[in-house]
Amino acid sequence: MGNIIEGISIHDLRIIPHPQGDIMHGIKSSDVGYSSFGEAYFSSVHHGEVKGWKMHTKMRLNLIVPIGEIKFVAYHEPKDTFFEIILSRSNYKRLSVEPGIWLAFQGVGQNENMLLNIASIPHDPTEAESKPLEAINYQWQ
Amino acid sequence: MGNIIEGISIHDLRIIPHPQGDIMHGIKSSDVGYSSFGEAYFSSVHHGEVKGWKMHTKMRLNLIVPIGEIKFVAYHEPKDTFFEIILSRSNYKRLSVEPGIWLAFQGVGQNENMLLNIASIPHDPTEAESKPLEAINYQWQ
Repeated sequence: MGNIIEGISIHDLRIIPHPQGDIMHGIKSSDVGYSSFGEAYFSSVHHGEVKGWKMHTKMRLNLIVPIGEIKFVAYHEPKDTFFEIILSRSNYKRLSVEPGIWLAFQGVGQNENMLLNIASIPHDPTEAESKPLEAINYQWQ
Repeated sequence: MGNIIEGISIHDLRIIPHPQGDIMHGIKSSDVGYSSFGEAYFSSVHHGEVKGWKMHTKMRLNLIVPIGEIKFVAYHEPKDTFFEIILSRSNYKRLSVEPGIWLAFQGVGQNENMLLNIASIPHDPTEAESKPLEAINYQWQ
């Protein structure tokens, strides 16, 4: 586990120190993994809680964690392979997730844990599928 | 002061309560004020510090404050009019700024103050002009 699986890519991001307050990169239209802009939204997840499983059939996700620490677990169902990564300001990267991948994420930090998703299409409940946490065999701590 | 000036618009945003962690809207491609996607980045500003003045000649800004509290001051130079607003999770709105408006912003919250800019073009230092704080006659507290 921990290797990149099909449908998932990880991209380094820069934090630029500034005396009055740092700048933290997110995503540019020219970046690998960017396809189109549909919507940007934040999602918080409390310490220990898990949101998922969800699989988008059309939306491509670009996930960044500016606040706290979040563990992402991706599951490639046809190949039965998992990928996991913990993102935070100390491991500041963009996680790009193509349609067709099952994703769940867990709050790791004791305080607020918040992701930004730069999604390729606007929210549309009809394009996403959900499964209960126990439907996919992953051992959450 | 406090009225909307030419080149500035304010848009209500929803925070959707969720037992495992709230969802906070940002911007959709269909929203008023959205024109194109160039780049998303975060900018922090420490308590009492001011970043600005800066005027973009091409970039349209869409500013959201998910963390802390930030005061924005916009200056329409040809009409010599100001607009100011404090954004935070308790006044959760999107501030849309067209090219040609001078903008500065100040950290209001005691802890971290951070904005997200969904910019219409990628960062390009040649399209922005800067002025020192004292060059525009505004009384910062």
